Amino acid sequence: MNSQTVLNYLQDLQNRIVEALELVDGKRFLHDSWQRSEGGGGTSCLLEDGNVFERAGVGFSHVMGNKLPPSATAAHPEAAGRSWEAMGVSLVLHPRNPFAPTVHMNVRFFVAKTPMPEMQSAKYQGASQGAEEPNARQYNQVRPAFGDESNAGAALETQPIWWFGGGMDLTPYYGFEDDAVHFHRVCRDALAPFGADYYPRFKQACDQYFYLKHRKEPRGIGGIFFDDFSELGFDRSFALQRNVGDAFLQAYLPILQRRKDTPYGERERDFQAYRRGRYVEFNLVYDRGTLFGLQSNGRTESILMSMPPSVKWRYDWKPADNTPEARLYTDFLVDRDWL
Amino acid sequence: MNSQTVLNYLQDLQNRIVEALELVDGKRFLHDSWQRSEGGGGTSCLLEDGNVFERAGVGFSHVMGNKLPPSATAAHPEAAGRSWEAMGVSLVLHPRNPFAPTVHMNVRFFVAKTPMPEMQSAKYQGASQGAEEPNARQYNQVRPAFGDESNAGAALETQPIWWFGGGMDLTPYYGFEDDAVHFHRVCRDALAPFGADYYPRFKQACDQYFYLKHRKEPRGIGGIFFDDFSELGFDRSFALQRNVGDAFLQAYLPILQRRKDTPYGERERDFQAYRRGRYVEFNLVYDRGTLFGLQSNGRTESILMSMPPSVKWRYDWKPADNTPEARLYTDFLVDRDWL
Repeated sequence: MNSQTVLNYLQDLQNRIVEALELVDGKRFLHDSWQRSEGGGGTSCLLEDGNVFERAGVGFSHVMGNKLPPSATAAHPEAAGRSWEAMGVSLVLHPRNPFAPTVHMNVRFFVAKTPMPEMQSAKYQGASQGAEEPNARQYNQVRPAFGDESNAGAALETQPIWWFGGGMDLTPYYGFEDDAVHFHRVCRDALAPFGADYYPRFKQACDQYFYLKHRKEPRGIGGIFFDDFSELGFDRSFALQRNVGDAFLQAYLPILQRRKDTPYGERERDFQAYRRGRYVEFNLVYDRGTLFGLQSNGRTESILMSMPPSVKWRYDWKPADNTPEARLYTDFLVDRDWL
Repeated sequence: MNSQTVLNYLQDLQNRIVEALELVDGKRFLHDSWQRSEGGGGTSCLLEDGNVFERAGVGFSHVMGNKLPPSATAAHPEAAGRSWEAMGVSLVLHPRNPFAPTVHMNVRFFVAKTPMPEMQSAKYQGASQGAEEPNARQYNQVRPAFGDESNAGAALETQPIWWFGGGMDLTPYYGFEDDAVHFHRVCRDALAPFGADYYPRFKQACDQYFYLKHRKEPRGIGGIFFDDFSELGFDRSFALQRNVGDAFLQAYLPILQRRKDTPYGERERDFQAYRRGRYVEFNLVYDRGTLFGLQSNGRTESILMSMPPSVKWRYDWKPADNTPEARLYTDFLVDRDWL
C-alpha cells in the first residue's frame, strides 16, 4: 500500500483533465489552492461562465483527521472513529447548452488506521476506547500492513484499512441513445481488463446509488460506481481505479463535442434549470461524498462546486406527453441496459 | 388532548393566511388536495409567478403512520417506532422583490401512541418488542390519557405522547433594522401572555436551529422556534401555538408592504438568487421537517414547496466591502438582540 503513488496519480489526473477541458472551452480554469486547519488541503479548479461550461469544477483534495465519520464507509464500520486519510479527484461539469449532459466523475482513496501514539490525547482515548484499556493492547492485535513492504516496520504504529472508490455518471437534460451507449461502452471497456463481471456489477451499483428515493427517479442514465474496493489487492485495485480515471475524457468529450453547439431556446434552458434541481436534491440529501465533506468540516466551497450555476423549482410540473422533455422520463430515466 | 380541535384551527389558519396573501398579490392560489397511501393527506396552496410573490407555498397536512422516524422528535426518543399522527401548517413565501425578505412559518402537532391491537402484526412485534413479551404487558403500563376526558375510555388502546412545535423566521436579502425589530416584537408579544421567558428562549432556539454549520452563518435574522412543547399542558400549549400562528400575518405583512415596490435591478436580483442558495442548502441538509417528510414517504412536491423559484451558485463569492450586500453579512447575519 503506497498512498504517495496514488497521490501522484490523482494530481496528474486533475491537471490532464483541466487542460483538456480548457482546450474545449477556450477559457482558463481558476486554480485555487486551500489548506484545512485539521490537516491537509487541496486545489479546486473552477471555470464559470465559460464558452462551453456554465460551471465546471475539478477538485483535488488530500485531507486527514483523527476520527472518521460514519458516512465515509458503509463496508468498514470498524473504521469509523479511526484516524484517516482521504485523497481524491472529483469533478462535475455543467455545460451551458441544454443538449449537452452534465457529468460527474470521482476517484478516491481512503486509509483508516489506529492513531499514532503521539496523537492519542486523553480526549481521544476517552471517546473511542475504555479508559481502563491500555494502549498496548491494541498494538498486540495489530495485523501486518497490506502490500507495501515499507509499511511493515510501522506495524506497531498503524493498522491500516484502505479502499478505493469512484465512478462516473451522466445526467442528460435531453436524452440521446448514442450518448448513453457511448458512455457505458467506455465504462465497460475501462473495467474489462479486470474481469467481465465488473461492468455489470458497478453499473448496478451506480443505478442504486444515484437514485432519488423521494422522486422515484434515477439521477440520469447512470454509468459505474464502486466504493470500499480492495478485493484485487492494492496494485490491481489501484490499476482499476486508474483505468476509470483515465477513461473519463474519452467517455465524455465526444458527447460534449457533438452536443455543445446544438441550437436551443428559452424552452430548453428552462427545462435544464428545472432538471438541475434534481441534481441539487440528490447531492444535498443523499450524496455520501457531500455529506462526508460537510461532516468532516471540509471546505464548503470546494464541496459545493457540484451545485449547478442556475436552478429553478416549480410546483408539480410535468412535461406534456410526446415532447422531448417527456422522453427524458420515459426513455432515459429508467432502468435500462445500454449495451 | 383533542386533536380534532387542533385540526380545525390549522385548517382555518391556512385559509385565513391564503386569503390575506391573495389580497396582497392580486392573484389566486392554486389549491391542490392530495392523499397519502400510508394514511392522511393535505392541501397545498401555491402561488407562482404572482405580482408580489415569485413563489409562495402554504401547506396543510394531516398524516399518520405506524412507525415514527427518529427525525421527528429529539426530546422523545421513546416515541420513535410508535404509530403517530402529525398535523401542521407550513409556509414559505419568496417575494420577487429582493428588498422583501423570504419568510417561513410553521405550526405543528404530533401524537405518538402505541399501536391499536389490530395493527400489531407479527412483523411489528418482532421489530419493536421481544417476541416473548405479551401484548398485555404494555397495556398494564398505560398512563391516563392527557387532558381530554373523551380519551379516558381509550386508555387501553392508546398511550399518547403529544407535543406542539412551530415558529417563524425571516430571511432578508437586504437587511433593514426596522423590519427585524418589527418581526421580533410581534414574536415577543405573541408569547408574552405565557411568560416573559418564552421569547428569549424560543429566539435562542431559533438561532440555534436555523444555522448553516458548513457556512458558519445563520439562515437569516431569526425569529422564534419551539419543538417537543407540552410543558403548559394541552390547553395552554395549544393556546401558545395559536398565538404564534395568529401572529404571522401581523409579523410579516407590514414588512412586505413597505418593501415590495422598492426599485431594483439585475444586481439585486442576482444577489437574491445567490443567497437563495443558502435557503436550499439549509432545507435539504438540515431541516428536520424536510427530512421527516422525505423519510416518512411524504408528498415530495408539498415538502419541497419551500424551495426558491430560481437559485444561483457561484464559487467562493464574497460581496465587496461597504456594499449593501456586505452589510447583510456584517450587520444582520450575526447573533444579535433585536429588541
